[in-house]
Order: sequence, then C-alpha cells, then structure tokens
Amino acid sequence: MIVAMQSQATDEQIQDVIERMVELGFNVHRTSGDVQTILAGVGTPGQFEVTEFQVLPGVHQAYRISSQYKLAGRGFRPEGTKITFSNGVVVGGKEVVVMAGPCSVESREQIALSAKQVAEAGCRFLRGGAFKPRSSPYSFQGMGIDGLKIMRDAADEYGLLVITEVMEISQIEPMLEYIDCFQVGARNMQNFNLLRELGHVRKPVCLKRGIAATIEEVLLSAEYILSGGNYDLMLCERGIRTFETATRNTYDISAIPVLKQLTHLPVVGDPSHGVGKRDLVPSMALASVAAGADGLLMEMHPNPDKAMSDGAQSLFPEELTKLVKKLRMLAPVVDRSIMPAVELAHA
Amino acid sequence: MIVAMQSQATDEQIQDVIERMVELGFNVHRTSGDVQTILAGVGTPGQFEVTEFQVLPGVHQAYRISSQYKLAGRGFRPEGTKITFSNGVVVGGKEVVVMAGPCSVESREQIALSAKQVAEAGCRFLRGGAFKPRSSPYSFQGMGIDGLKIMRDAADEYGLLVITEVMEISQIEPMLEYIDCFQVGARNMQNFNLLRELGHVRKPVCLKRGIAATIEEVLLSAEYILSGGNYDLMLCERGIRTFETATRNTYDISAIPVLKQLTHLPVVGDPSHGVGKRDLVPSMALASVAAGADGLLMEMHPNPDKAMSDGAQSLFPEELTKLVKKLRMLAPVVDRSIMPAVELAHA
Amino acid sequence: MIVAMQSQATDEQIQDVIERMVELGFNVHRTSGDVQTILAGVGTPGQFEVTEFQVLPGVHQAYRISSQYKLAGRGFRPEGTKITFSNGVVVGGKEVVVMAGPCSVESREQIALSAKQVAEAGCRFLRGGAFKPRSSPYSFQGMGIDGLKIMRDAADEYGLLVITEVMEISQIEPMLEYIDCFQVGARNMQNFNLLRELGHVRKPVCLKRGIAATIEEVLLSAEYILSGGNYDLMLCERGIRTFETATRNTYDISAIPVLKQLTHLPVVGDPSHGVGKRDLVPSMALASVAAGADGLLMEMHPNPDKAMSDGAQSLFPEELTKLVKKLRMLAPVVDRSIMPAVELAHA
Amino acid sequence: MIVAMQSQATDEQIQDVIERMVELGFNVHRTSGDVQTILAGVGTPGQFEVTEFQVLPGVHQAYRISSQYKLAGRGFRPEGTKITFSNGVVVGGKEVVVMAGPCSVESREQIALSAKQVAEAGCRFLRGGAFKPRSSPYSFQGMGIDGLKIMRDAADEYGLLVITEVMEISQIEPMLEYIDCFQVGARNMQNFNLLRELGHVRKPVCLKRGIAATIEEVLLSAEYILSGGNYDLMLCERGIRTFETATRNTYDISAIPVLKQLTHLPVVGDPSHGVGKRDLVPSMALASVAAGADGLLMEMHPNPDKAMSDGAQSLFPEELTKLVKKLRMLAPVVDRSIMPAVELAHA
Repeated sequence: MIVAMQSQATDEQIQDVIERMVELGFNVHRTSGDVQTILAGVGTPGQFEVTEFQVLPGVHQAYRISSQYKLAGRGFRPEGTKITFSNGVVVGGKEVVVMAGPCSVESREQIALSAKQVAEAGCRFLRGGAFKPRSSPYSFQGMGIDGLKIMRDAADEYGLLVITEVMEISQIEPMLEYIDCFQVGARNMQNFNLLRELGHVRKPVCLKRGIAATIEEVLLSAEYILSGGNYDLMLCERGIRTFETATRNTYDISAIPVLKQLTHLPVVGDPSHGVGKRDLVPSMALASVAAGADGLLMEMHPNPDKAMSDGAQSLFPEELTKLVKKLRMLAPVVDRSIMPAVELAHA
Repeated sequence: MIVAMQSQATDEQIQDVIERMVELGFNVHRTSGDVQTILAGVGTPGQFEVTEFQVLPGVHQAYRISSQYKLAGRGFRPEGTKITFSNGVVVGGKEVVVMAGPCSVESREQIALSAKQVAEAGCRFLRGGAFKPRSSPYSFQGMGIDGLKIMRDAADEYGLLVITEVMEISQIEPMLEYIDCFQVGARNMQNFNLLRELGHVRKPVCLKRGIAATIEEVLLSAEYILSGGNYDLMLCERGIRTFETATRNTYDISAIPVLKQLTHLPVVGDPSHGVGKRDLVPSMALASVAAGADGLLMEMHPNPDKAMSDGAQSLFPEELTKLVKKLRMLAPVVDRSIMPAVELAHA
Repeated sequence: MIVAMQSQATDEQIQDVIERMVELGFNVHRTSGDVQTILAGVGTPGQFEVTEFQVLPGVHQAYRISSQYKLAGRGFRPEGTKITFSNGVVVGGKEVVVMAGPCSVESREQIALSAKQVAEAGCRFLRGGAFKPRSSPYSFQGMGIDGLKIMRDAADEYGLLVITEVMEISQIEPMLEYIDCFQVGARNMQNFNLLRELGHVRKPVCLKRGIAATIEEVLLSAEYILSGGNYDLMLCERGIRTFETATRNTYDISAIPVLKQLTHLPVVGDPSHGVGKRDLVPSMALASVAAGADGLLMEMHPNPDKAMSDGAQSLFPEELTKLVKKLRMLAPVVDRSIMPAVELAHA
Repeated sequence: MIVAMQSQATDEQIQDVIERMVELGFNVHRTSGDVQTILAGVGTPGQFEVTEFQVLPGVHQAYRISSQYKLAGRGFRPEGTKITFSNGVVVGGKEVVVMAGPCSVESREQIALSAKQVAEAGCRFLRGGAFKPRSSPYSFQGMGIDGLKIMRDAADEYGLLVITEVMEISQIEPMLEYIDCFQVGARNMQNFNLLRELGHVRKPVCLKRGIAATIEEVLLSAEYILSGGNYDLMLCERGIRTFETATRNTYDISAIPVLKQLTHLPVVGDPSHGVGKRDLVPSMALASVAAGADGLLMEMHPNPDKAMSDGAQSLFPEELTKLVKKLRMLAPVVDRSIMPAVELAHA
C-alpha cells in the first residue's frame, strides 16, 4: 500500500498513519519531498481496506498495490488452466469450444431437437436453463429438475456435454448427476454463499460476469470458488450495462484479452446476452474469437419465434451451422482451431 | 403493446404479427398511415416479452405499455403503504425514520455502545450486519447468528428495532427470532429464490436497489416479495455504479421521488453506501429527506477508524447526533417530522 | 508520482523507470520490499502522462499523486471565490442565488412575461437560450443575437441579470454587450478552444459539467478558463448519463459537496436538465440546496406546454414561486439564505 | 408518434392530446381498450419533442416512431456510401482501409519516419494530430498548421492520404490545402456549429462517436454534416465511458454492425482509443474487422515510449506490420480484403 499525505499534513498525522500501517504488518518507508510525504508499505499484511486510509486525517490518497486475488491471478498458473471434461473435451486449450442451445428447456421434443441441431452444427456442449432467473415473478420460471433429466437424455444421445445454470445452494446436490458444468448467472456473480458452496463440488463451473461488475470483481468472485478447492473454473463475458440502448447490453469484448492477461482461467464469450439481438450474434461471435476467447456460449432454438424466453437473441439452427463454419475459418488466424462436427451415427 | 411496422413491411408480415398478438390474448387495432402501419394491442394478455416482437420480420419497433408489476404499482394502494413495527414505529407515515449503526456487528461491547449512541441521537432502528457479503473471500465475513443475539440484546436495552441483512434462504428461519426487519442487499436484489422466500415470512423487508438496477427492475423484484403475500416492504436507494470515481457509487437521489410516484411502498435512502465517504454523508442525508425519503439508513461506528468494515463511510457518534438535529429542522420544510430523541432511563 | 514495479521486474527495468522519472524532473526514492520495488517521485516536474509509465516493461501500476489543476484547487483560494455582478448580486456568498427562465428565447412577449414571473418569484437571474445546441439539425436552433437583445430589455425592466449559453468563439464578442454571464453547455465542456477564449473575457462564466465528465475533468476544463485570467467562474452540475432511463439524466447531487471540497469556485445545480421532468424539479432543487449548492439554474416557461424546447422540464410560473418559498424555508437549515423577492415597482 | 393514455385519463385529457397532435400535422387514430386509450399519430409532421407529450396530463407514455435522421438512414442509400479519395482509395467498399500514425505530429523527423513505417506496413492513410484537444491546459497542444505542412510532405513522399483532427471552425479553411480527411473528435461530436460548417466543405469527414453518445445521437450529428451537402462522411467507434477502469474506455464493437444496419455511411473502428493500452490493440483491431468494420484508425509511433501524447496506446512499428498481416488473413473470412503493402520505390 502507498499513502500520499497532504502537503499540509502534520507530523502527528503522519505518525498516526505509519502506526496503523505497522499494526497491519507493513514495513513502512517514508519519503519526504518538498511538497508532500509519501509512505510506502511493503510486506505481506493481513486483510485491510484501503478506503479506511483514504479518510484518515492528513491523507491525500491511498492506493492498494497488490491485488486481492491470489489463486485467480495469472502468476498462480502461468501456463493457463485447462478444464478436461468426461468425454475428453478440453476448455482452455488450443481448441475454441462452442456451446449452444435454447435459453430454457421447454419440453422433451424441443430439447431433443436442439441437441441434434447443436451437435450437427459442430458444438460440443448443450446449454439450456432449467432454473430460470427472471426479472418478473410472472415470467416462465423453468422446468426444474425434470428439465435437467430430459436435457441429460438429449445430450447423451448426441454426445454432448450439459452446461446449465444453478441459482441456489439447495439445487447443487440434485443437479450433480445430470450436468457436466454449473453456470453461475450474472445476477448471482456476487451471491457469495452460492460461490463458496461451488468451491466444494467436484464439477466444473462457468462464472458469468455481472452486468455492473468490474474485471477485478469477477476475479474476486472467482477466488471464492478457487479457495474452496475447485479449480475447474472458466469465466464468461456476457455484456455490461451502459447508457446505450441499441443493444441489450454492451458486450465488452476487450474484457476477453484483459482477463486472459490477468488470470490463468479460460474465458468464454456469450454474445447472445451481450447484444440481445439475433442478427448481431454472428458478428460478435467472430469478434470474440478474434479477440482470444477460449469458447462461446450461445443461444439457439429450433424455433426462436416460439421460444418461451430469449427468442429474440436465439439463432435459428441454420444460422448456427453457418456461423460455426465461419468460426472454423477464422480460428487459425489467431492460432486456434474449432473441432470438426461429429459424424452423427443415426443422422 | 404497440408494434410499429417498417414502412416497407409486407401485408404478410403484418398479418403474421397480428396473429401472434391475437394468440397472446390481445385485441389488435390496426392503423395504416402513409408511411407505416401501427398495431395497437389492447386487453389483458398473459406474459410476453416485447423483445420477441422487436425482431420479427417487418417490425420497426415494439413497445410494452403496461408495466409488468401490479402489486407494487402506486395504483394498487394509492394512499401508500405504512409498515407498523412491534413498538409502534411506522415507516411510510409522516415521520421520517432514521436507522443507524455499524456496518458489521463486531463484539458485544461495540454493538452495545453503538446502540446507546444510536438511541441517544434519536434513531429508532439499529442496523448492523451479522452476515456480510464481501467482494473478497479473505475479508471479514461477519459473526453470524452470534452477532444477531448480541445485537438483539443491545437493541432491546435501548428500545431499538433491529434491521440486518439476510444473504441466503437458510438464514431466514434462524434470524426470525432476533430481528425486526430483513434487509436484502444490493448484490441480492435479483436473487429471486431469496426474494420468493421472503414473500412467505411475516416480517418486514427492506429491499435495496442493485448497483446496476433500473427503477423498473427494483419494482419487479419487489413484486416477487409482494406476490408471496408479504406487503410489509420498503425500498432503499443506495447508489448506482457509474463512470464517476470521486464517490463510491453515484447516489441517485432522484430515484426517491420517482419511486414515490410509481409505487405505494415506503422509500428510504442509504447515503453511506451511496457516497462511501463519511464527510459527504450528512449533506446527502439532508438532501434525501428534502427529496422526500421516508427514512434513512446510515452507518455509524463508535470508533470508525477501527471498524472491521466500511469505516470510511461510518459517521462518528457525535456527527450522527448533529445530523439528526439538522434533519429535525429540515423535515418540516417538506411537511414531515423526525421523532424526538428518547429519554434514556439509564443514561 | 508513484510507480509500483512488478514482483519479477529486473534491475534493468527498474533503472529504466528511474531514469525516465529523473528526466521529467522528479527526485526518486526507491523502496525495495520482499515482494516488489516501489519508486516514489517527488518534486515538481513538468507535464507528464501517468499512462506512459503504466505500460513500461516491469511496471505493475503507476499513480499520479498531485492533481493536474492548480488554479481551480481549493488550496488556491481557501476562503472561496465570490463572483460579484454589476447589480451587487454575489454568487458564492451566504445567499443561494436562483436563476430561472425558459429554455429558449422565443419572442419579445414570451421573454418579457418570463422575466416578470421570474422576478416576482424572487429570482435574480433570467436564463434563456438564444443559441441552442440541438441534437437534431431540424430542431429549433434559437433566435441568435436578436434573442439576446429582447432578453436584455426584459431583464433590465425587472432588475434581472442575464445568463445565456455561448456555443462558439465567434459569438463571444457580439454577446458581450447583452449579457451578464456566459454559460458553457455540457456538450462544450471540453471545447477547449472556446474555454481558452472565455479565459480572456472579463465577464463571469458558468461552466456546466459534461454528461460523461468526471469531476476531475470538470476542474481541468475550469483550469482552461482560469489560466486565461478569468477568475469569475462558477461550475454547474446538471446530470450525468447512466443506464437509468426513468430520468433524462442522473442528477449527481453528491457532485455538489465533492466540488465544494475540491475547488474554491461556486457550484450551482441545474435540476431541470438533471432529471428532465417538471414534477421532479422541486424536490431536486430542495435537495441541491440541502447538499450545499450556491445557486440553482432552472427552467420556467410562462406556458410550458407551448414551449419550443424543453417544455417537459420547465416549471409553471406558480410552481417556481411556490418552490422559491420552500427554498427560503430550507436555506437556514444549512446556514444559507435566499434573497427576498423584489418589490416590483410597476407590478 | 404513439401516445398511450393512463387508464384513468379523462375524455377531456384525451381530446387535449389529440388536438396537440393534430396541430403538429398528425392524423390521429384512436384505439380504446378496456384498460386504456391509445392514440396513434401517422403522417409527416414537422419537428416535435416527444418528451412534451410524456408530461401532458393523463398521458402514460409517448413514443416517437420515426427516427429523426433522414439522410443518414440506411434507407436513403441502401447500397451504402463509398468515399473515393484523390488517389483512388475507397472507404466503404470491399477493402478494409487501415489508417495509422502517431497521436501528435511532433517533428519533421518523427512524422517522416512514421509515414515510412505506416506505408511499409501496408496502410493507406497517415493519421496525426496538429491541433490537440487535451484535458489539461498544461499538456502539449499540438504544432498547429506547421504540423500539417510537414505531415503533408511526409504523406506525399509515401503515397499516403492525410487524416487529422479539426477542433474549431477557424481551422477549417487553413487546413483544406494540407489534408485529405477531416476528423471530428469525440469531444466535438456535438459541437453543432463545427459540424454545420463541415457540411459545407468538399472534403471527406470522419466523425467520431462521443464517449457518452448513443448511436442515435451519432446519426443525428451525422445529419448535421449531411444536411449541409457533404455526403463524404464516415463514422468512427472509439469507445464509450463506462464503470470499467481496466481499459481507458469500453470499446463498443457491437456499435459497428449496429451502425452498418442503421446507416449507409462507412464505419471504422479506433481500437487505440477504445482500449488505451498497446497490448490490447491488435486483438481489438482483429475483432473490429471480424465485426464488419470498413476501416481501422490506429496509433503507431516510431518510439512510443518517447511520444508526446498517447504513447501508452501507440503500437510499435513492427507490431503494426505484424497486425496488418493478420488482418489480411482475417478479412476474407468476412468477405473483405486488405490492400497489399505498396512497393516503396525508395525503400
């Protein structure tokens, strides 16, 4: 920590700040200039809040130097984290992984058809929500565990992995047998109790950035999961809230390379929520991979116009197929690749 | 709902939109101008998402007219909601209610002293966190139920009500016997499972606005609680996240009168979190009451410099006392009042 | 400036940073901790950009300690700036000054009636735009110099001062004889050529905060005017752009006390543009004065429903009168006052 | 325009709204539902402000349907605008055009070297500022016309076009002989007087999006230039201001495809200002082209560490060369191309 004192700070005030820094475990070096005194605290103190120092008498400004996250930092695993799933699919490797599916699981037929289309397009993960966080209590709230069962069946038939959202601690246990990856939604990015529990499961987690979360806060939330012992974690950029209303959110593509610098965790992009409009999704998906994303999470629905939620941002099946083809062309430009579509035995 | 078609929309596209509107239960009136066709859907349809219509072929723009919240709307209770607490204190009446206390419950001594100071200043509620949502897993996480017990004792000694944050469904039940009002923090404003459960308890709730939540979304979250049958609900403005960094958040005081127009629920302001700096809190507290707040929620600590959290924004006890005096002068300007400080028997 | 090196920074990198700091005129003090090296630069160097240091090899973070504004800083005039106008009215003193009038000067009759109503309500300044910055080229662009002439006449008849917007350097000279205070609109807050010219006139200026301007940037723009030699400058908070759409802007009332701490310049609030809706203006005006504003700038129109611009946020004359009465009650709570309404000779 | 009345609106209020709509030139169609009355105004009225209607008694909400820009709209030139420069270079065609150069023109040597490096990398435009908008009056303000002269010489030597910023009306005339394209910076996007003048010159203009400007506002500002008769206009996304501080701005890449849908004007991206950090520029440049940009505007400096401004976001020459190579690989994925590097006669 560094504390810059005001030019008119008294010796007593300076001494007071030094004492508090020492109390916290800092070694304090004092630099006295013509204008002001600067106190540099080095060492490895316990937890402290830099804002406390900012309001002490005589203090001009105080800065935290070391980041508060440790396990999430790039330095913890410079080579990068690779998450290996049961069927051998790896997130965080050279291959860019595409995950797609409907916003909500609506019926056995809908999800079976979705799985087929997703697999045929060349994706490796089936996404779909069984527990739905909806702004209004009167909106469709999802099929719950029944939805997960039929999603599992559909995914298995087409060799897909299942990624789906968990909203509440009590859902974790019953979800475990049906899914391959927990997704924590943007609204729950700072539901710390939920994050702490997910640190104790042995199942990969995809943590979405909150719509008003800084990148620093995403990494601190990641730290909750990592510090519980679960290192199979990927992060997801899905748009932040700004003044612009032409898109649902402002999809912050720059967050992808910024995160890749700061952390060893894989980073995927969700252009569907990022922009909220189907016709913008392909260009944003391409841009995400051009920017270095390790994967994409996108909404596709067999019949978007009839979707029970998020139809406006769901791709038509043929759009997904076309997009994955383009992604396959683009990936090598950034030294990546996209797996070829699986040969479907029963297709 | 209103749908404005594009000027070049085909008859087929227009028919398609009309059919979908009818399917949802709308009566559709069509207006054909020289430039474009406008479809006005009236009636009381079920749930729908206006974004679905925005992406239909031939649609220029679609607008939802009726708000999605019903029970939270001003029209539901034009006279306004008054929440009456066990000791007769009313939130939402003519009196402006002041709630104060430390960010965290830290020890029996600290909370007892806080209660004394809060009561002497003329406040009616003791605030203090036992379960703490912290950005970093390494920060102090609160004393839990033990904290609530000593908080209850302290409050009782000085005739105060207890308001404290609930973070998780499993905490609700054990909290019930110790508290007078649940507080839902900004990070949990869209933790819908938690909100739904709080709709089933018979204890008042104070719902804080999320840092990136629109006023519409605050009211939709309120609807989750109200639709469960719990009408003892107040809302709290506590600052939104913007580009400005001179303050911790941007305290959106205009949200207070806007909410008072849109809803019958009482609205309180939390200037401590709103600005995050002690020396700005008094002016923001005065401004909140001038703007029509039904109450204030503020942080005060017997020794802010030693606080385990949020010390930078906690008032010193004497600052609180001075502020409440000013508030007492200001309230009549806006046809309100602040209760006189209680005569403390053992003071 | 302080530079915190990365923990793995090499000696060579550290030396390189030190050399650059010395080149700029800093005295550099080096603190080597177990984890990292910290370089504190003290002294009074010339201009530099801290971002340059942030990207140097081996640098973890670099902070500017001294603010870039000098003349605008509180320390330059701790007692505060008072602007005295020709008729003896002072902005920045104990009295809170109210400025009101229509958005646009529309006709001799409209502005004469406005002036009468504004004076009767107890205001000291007549506002009104003759040069109008409009988002669309097809909107009413103002009456120009002709508008200023009739505004001057109307103001003189009722003993009012004239405050009006300047958009362009070439307008300054012709405006001088008709006005008492130049207003720089939010869109021009960083029109540096215009600011520089206004530094050379001998007429007070009111500089509005841009909708995306930080408080630091407001003060840097103020510095352009002050450094030209014009010290009769007041600042104006008028709302910033955020994600919230319930109000036209988010009126950042906390900026008022923050600015009062950082600068000696008077600070006024413009609640009309801040919220954009007439029925919210009175509560926001009261809140502004409660928060410490030195004045208010508000829109009032003799017939808002027929206004050529901004009618939706213009007060009716009787609303202004009622509001000023309330302001007069509130001001003493914060140790201020509002001048009594003038006795109009010909009323 | 559509006006939705409140459910409790009186007949008189409805009549009043209808009359005002008719006054403006609308044909009004009235739809009376069980709950509320909706008024659809069709036809082609003059200018009006929809906010005026939002505050009329009895009105629930009012919406503008037709956009306020006409000439900028896609429908005005569905085939898209192509700007052809003197040397045959086209912006808005199949080729993606790369413009690069230093933030500021600093000396004859610096700009000559920049031009050589820019041309060798395969760019067609030399960018560089002679008039610099700087937040602080004490920062380097540019070399002025002298800077333009040496920039022209350097560009001519390497067959490059010159693009540079204009800040003020009085600069237009003297700039004309030295430059190929005027650039309007983000801070001047709503300097309407400047825009209007640029509508009267016969020289292409590049209009940058303001940091808090909506896409609608960008197009309205474009309308100022177009309505003056200058159709050689391109737009530039360069980042918006949000709460995130990890990057200088939030580079809104989705604005590129959104603008391409709404307008016929070419759209270029400026990743240098978008993110403000050199090491993020290449990935954001690739993402911009993947998203459909017609061109890129980037900062490169022969020696970024010694740059007088924006060095932190300026590419090293070899980085630019490498990036253009990657762009040349990527362009075909989105059916575009990048011109081969010119053979430099004297290289």
